[in-house]
Amino acid sequence: MATLGLVEYQDANPEVRAVYDDIMATRKTDSVTNFWKAIARDPATLRRTWESLKHIMAPGAIDPLTKELIYLAVSSTNQCHYCIASHTASAQKKGMTDEMFAELMAVVGMANETNILASAYRVEIDEQFRSHPG
Amino acid sequence: MATLGLVEYQDANPEVRAVYDDIMATRKTDSVTNFWKAIARDPATLRRTWESLKHIMAPGAIDPLTKELIYLAVSSTNQCHYCIASHTASAQKKGMTDEMFAELMAVVGMANETNILASAYRVEIDEQFRSHPG
Amino acid sequence: MATLGLVEYQDANPEVRAVYDDIMATRKTDSVTNFWKAIARDPATLRRTWESLKHIMAPGAIDPLTKELIYLAVSSTNQCHYCIASHTASAQKKGMTDEMFAELMAVVGMANETNILASAYRVEIDEQFRSHPG
Amino acid sequence: MATLGLVEYQDANPEVRAVYDDIMATRKTDSVTNFWKAIARDPATLRRTWESLKHIMAPGAIDPLTKELIYLAVSSTNQCHYCIASHTASAQKKGMTDEMFAELMAVVGMANETNILASAYRVEIDEQFRSHPG
Amino acid sequence: MATLGLVEYQDANPEVRAVYDDIMATRKTDSVTNFWKAIARDPATLRRTWESLKHIMAPGAIDPLTKELIYLAVSSTNQCHYCIASHTASAQKKGMTDEMFAELMAVVGMANETNILASAYRVEIDEQFRSHPG
Amino acid sequence: MATLGLVEYQDANPEVRAVYDDIMATRKTDSVTNFWKAIARDPATLRRTWESLKHIMAPGAIDPLTKELIYLAVSSTNQCHYCIASHTASAQKKGMTDEMFAELMAVVGMANETNILASAYRVEIDEQFRSHPG
Repeated sequence: MATLGLVEYQDANPEVRAVYDDIMATRKTDSVTNFWKAIARDPATLRRTWESLKHIMAPGAIDPLTKELIYLAVSSTNQCHYCIASHTASAQKKGMTDEMFAELMAVVGMANETNILASAYRVEIDEQFRSHPG
Repeated sequence: MATLGLVEYQDANPEVRAVYDDIMATRKTDSVTNFWKAIARDPATLRRTWESLKHIMAPGAIDPLTKELIYLAVSSTNQCHYCIASHTASAQKKGMTDEMFAELMAVVGMANETNILASAYRVEIDEQFRSHPG
Repeated sequence: MATLGLVEYQDANPEVRAVYDDIMATRKTDSVTNFWKAIARDPATLRRTWESLKHIMAPGAIDPLTKELIYLAVSSTNQCHYCIASHTASAQKKGMTDEMFAELMAVVGMANETNILASAYRVEIDEQFRSHPG
Repeated sequence: MATLGLVEYQDANPEVRAVYDDIMATRKTDSVTNFWKAIARDPATLRRTWESLKHIMAPGAIDPLTKELIYLAVSSTNQCHYCIASHTASAQKKGMTDEMFAELMAVVGMANETNILASAYRVEIDEQFRSHPG
Repeated sequence: MATLGLVEYQDANPEVRAVYDDIMATRKTDSVTNFWKAIARDPATLRRTWESLKHIMAPGAIDPLTKELIYLAVSSTNQCHYCIASHTASAQKKGMTDEMFAELMAVVGMANETNILASAYRVEIDEQFRSHPG
Repeated sequence: MATLGLVEYQDANPEVRAVYDDIMATRKTDSVTNFWKAIARDPATLRRTWESLKHIMAPGAIDPLTKELIYLAVSSTNQCHYCIASHTASAQKKGMTDEMFAELMAVVGMANETNILASAYRVEIDEQFRSHPG
């Protein structure tokens, strides 16, 4: 059903297989998800997307579980059904409990409500928020 | 400039003042931001919105700083200029460093990219993501 | 600042003037707003957009004020700053009171919140909503 | 399929049952829809969301049918499939005819088109829309 | 499943049939797609939408294939599942290869990422982009 | 005003300067725009974003001007003001005429309208669009 079809491991060329191998090794799984198989017809996009994602989701100033919560918050706001399903699973795997999911969604829902209210009421940005010590 | 104007403390009725007092006490500040003043012409919405926000952003299974990062992730995805400005400040106040901001934005940017790719490539949800132990 | 500049009445060709005249006659005003002047460099788009809008916003099964409230609800959800400003004014001209504006925004805010929650919680459509007597 | 599963009446605790009872009494139905069952694992969010919705959708300066049309306009703009299905049904129950649905959608479609055009053509807000008698 | 049902050719009135005939003649096909059948209960919207689309998608300063790529870029950004499916097919029919699809999506994905980054980092518009020779 | 401030060339470290040099050489300009200066506080994001963008926007199966039109179509749909301004300029530099801009916007506006209509009318995907020769 994916537009360009899915590239399975056994049919993949060496460049694609190398990315698949790295995904499985990094994630400690023995298969790659449909997202990667769907974009693999374009090996350059596959490699670029994976390299970026791997780098961005690695531990840093923000821990991996929090990064997954943020990813799920964005996917929920965009209502990307595939991403909601896959990142809910990723977040659960990294430790998100049902209680955390519910709190996450409460924040996401509220943010979506107040975002619209702020723009619709035409609220001017407060003076104190205009300069940044950065 | 706000559609219904801003309700300043000295002009507010007791119901609005009570909410303003609670906002300032909860946030340990001596003023309320324009968002609250802009919706205060409708005291019921003011009270309801504040009560919900206060409850949702309180410490729980997710800590307050992480909740602010999530709020900023949603506001960024929605490109709400007021909310980006005010929640960047809120997050900084709660401990977000420049490094954390940069990592947050890297995750938010990447999530927005892959959300669109997943939908546009028409990727089917993997079997493993369809059932939930919930 | 508009990308193609604004076409003022005195500089407009007869085709554009005819549309401007119809806008002013229909709206009982003596000027056209910037939106129309900005798209007037492309007279075909100007005419098509105006003819569609005029037809759609005319009294029908839904009254003109309600149509303006709906227009403002969409513009708020999309956070189109120009459209929020202009359609708030249009709705006020057709009878929207401050109380109606506040109620409108409460509905719009709540709808934006629950839209995201429904998708993020992956709620299945109830059986009863799947068939339509239409 | 809902992420946290659905909480059925017979399995609900007293707090959740109280909300379900109020939903059924208010809506004059003998069951609650999946949306409520899906968020009920988090009773606080269930109660807060229902109390807000009940208050907002009640008769006021805007009548209940018009509020449903506005809700459907937002849900359509956000392309929330669950919400489109459920609020189309709610609006029909409150009196929306097929003709009204078609007119509603014509307005929603047009607003989405002109919202984008106004921003993409970089139209400046007219002087007359900048100040508000509020 | 469409809200107002689908209007099939044999059940259509002369006004609807005339539009269907024009769609089939213009597209050199012997059937019309569900989108047109779904909005045909409102013949005025059907005619207006088709006339606008026919005019807009015709060869002009931009060629028809490029217009289809643009249509698909917008549909992907909005995550409209029906539109992604139908416009992927339309674009393929007009000459879009798999390689072009992959490049199109790479641009669309990147644009969605940088759009959010530009707003979230609160980047000011460069002086050089503020005036237009237009 | 940018959240983390702008990194000017003279203040940049060698890693950032190398990216700036490559941007200016690739684009044949003698300065970099604010977007790059705003994300340069995070050199890794700067480098990754630029490398991706450079690769994606290079000539391929789709020519550079068409890629710019697609970028502007997405930026318009997302209503990213910075991106609309900068990519309108980029597209003009690569050959976009006023007539092309107007046609582009007509397609973008129409796509945004029909995207919403297709979802709001709950149109089912035609059988013929479900399988792909891919």
